[in-house]
Amino acid sequence: MSDTLKNSTESDIRFSEVDSMSVVWHGNYVKYLEDGREAFGRQYGLGYLDVYKNKVMTPVVKLDLNYKQYIAYGDRIIIETEFVNTAAAKIIFKYKIYRASDRKLALTAKSIQVFVETDGTLLFTNPSFYEEWKKKWNLSVG
Amino acid sequence: MSDTLKNSTESDIRFSEVDSMSVVWHGNYVKYLEDGREAFGRQYGLGYLDVYKNKVMTPVVKLDLNYKQYIAYGDRIIIETEFVNTAAAKIIFKYKIYRASDRKLALTAKSIQVFVETDGTLLFTNPSFYEEWKKKWNLSVG
Amino acid sequence: MSDTLKNSTESDIRFSEVDSMSVVWHGNYVKYLEDGREAFGRQYGLGYLDVYKNKVMTPVVKLDLNYKQYIAYGDRIIIETEFVNTAAAKIIFKYKIYRASDRKLALTAKSIQVFVETDGTLLFTNPSFYEEWKKKWNLSVG
Amino acid sequence: MSDTLKNSTESDIRFSEVDSMSVVWHGNYVKYLEDGREAFGRQYGLGYLDVYKNKVMTPVVKLDLNYKQYIAYGDRIIIETEFVNTAAAKIIFKYKIYRASDRKLALTAKSIQVFVETDGTLLFTNPSFYEEWKKKWNLSVG
Repeated sequence: MSDTLKNSTESDIRFSEVDSMSVVWHGNYVKYLEDGREAFGRQYGLGYLDVYKNKVMTPVVKLDLNYKQYIAYGDRIIIETEFVNTAAAKIIFKYKIYRASDRKLALTAKSIQVFVETDGTLLFTNPSFYEEWKKKWNLSVG
Repeated sequence: MSDTLKNSTESDIRFSEVDSMSVVWHGNYVKYLEDGREAFGRQYGLGYLDVYKNKVMTPVVKLDLNYKQYIAYGDRIIIETEFVNTAAAKIIFKYKIYRASDRKLALTAKSIQVFVETDGTLLFTNPSFYEEWKKKWNLSVG
Repeated sequence: MSDTLKNSTESDIRFSEVDSMSVVWHGNYVKYLEDGREAFGRQYGLGYLDVYKNKVMTPVVKLDLNYKQYIAYGDRIIIETEFVNTAAAKIIFKYKIYRASDRKLALTAKSIQVFVETDGTLLFTNPSFYEEWKKKWNLSVG
Repeated sequence: MSDTLKNSTESDIRFSEVDSMSVVWHGNYVKYLEDGREAFGRQYGLGYLDVYKNKVMTPVVKLDLNYKQYIAYGDRIIIETEFVNTAAAKIIFKYKIYRASDRKLALTAKSIQVFVETDGTLLFTNPSFYEEWKKKWNLSVG
């Protein structure tokens, strides 16, 4: 039983995303992480809209970003998103963002999301659709 | 009967809002216009939340921007928002954005908003709350 | 002699680009227009970096946006960018943005850019690299 | 000798900063942290432009965000920025963001910045302007 799933997606850097140093403004990486998470979601059926159908939301409660290398306008990036399985009622992802031209590592990051009902109530156990999703992908459910 | 109402508000330029030329990226002015419109709304009781309470939304359907002067990081701007009264079921604003330090005109703009119900239906006549709002501010209701 | 050049490019809508109505916040279309302009630039050799190599910048001085239809998260858009030739020392583009799923027209727009030297001096005649670019693409140079 | 300096600043939430849940999109907090850092810089003379005058840049290399509470459109926030003194050639800040209306804690965060010369060379010791800045504010220089 594997406990990991991975997605890789690519993106161009927009002119509006670079700062006065002509490199990506550090806050914009949060968008790229979301791009990675959504590309993962499309591949494995765990996108924002898939989750919302189950009357659950998954807000980010923790985000750690480690910047390694600048990315400039004109560059293209590779976003690797890896699902980190946990028994807790959380969704954890690890990310690596590379500059596509030379595969230099630009950023590592980690996000933690929790499950809340649409009225905002925090769930302390995994919702059933998520347990089923884990089984489907052969991930241990704890 | 006056047919105009005006608001003036100020804002600092964020580092994340300037581009690789160290001047405000042109798309960010749309945020400043919304800042102006919302400051107007707070002053006169026509903010986004005031409108939404009446189960109506006012999407922007037209936006014209004329750029006159660069604004740099470290500058402060003055946003002047002027209500342009019309008999049509529309909200029209004209804007002027100045650099605060020397009052140089940086941008003129105009926006047109329409009224739609929360299900998306376009309204061809002014909703009653808006007629009342006009009367309160002594604007001709056409 | 044709006086038009066109590019078509596609883009996904990011979660961070929709507003509390779950539709694209109107200011974000300015990014899509820039995406279209840069895709055009890559196809025809008139990108931001191509221009900058010639020690010239092309700031946007006018931008008109006409909103026709909402675009929601999960939608994909088609951005069509059309070069409008003019004898004046300006770059003019017209844009159409469609929802990819049903090709409904979501936005029409027009931008005007001028040429300035890197010290900010406005150019009243076309820079030579731009005249050559026009000749290369068989556009009348006025 | 105190080893801490603090700034407190306030900000309104923009309509364009909330997501389809009508709460601040989590990535936008990075802007508020930068607002806090810049307000700190204006109070104590360590702003982006102060630093840049010394031919040094201070890119963020690490950013940790912990989300505690939603913030909605219409809310106002208080951003508290605290300088964490260290002997290492780094600038460390801790942040707390509160909802102004009830002072509920919405976010805690920490950032680490390093010193690089304008050509990108990383500095392993504090630049002299920074040592002087520390002395001026009575911070131990380690």
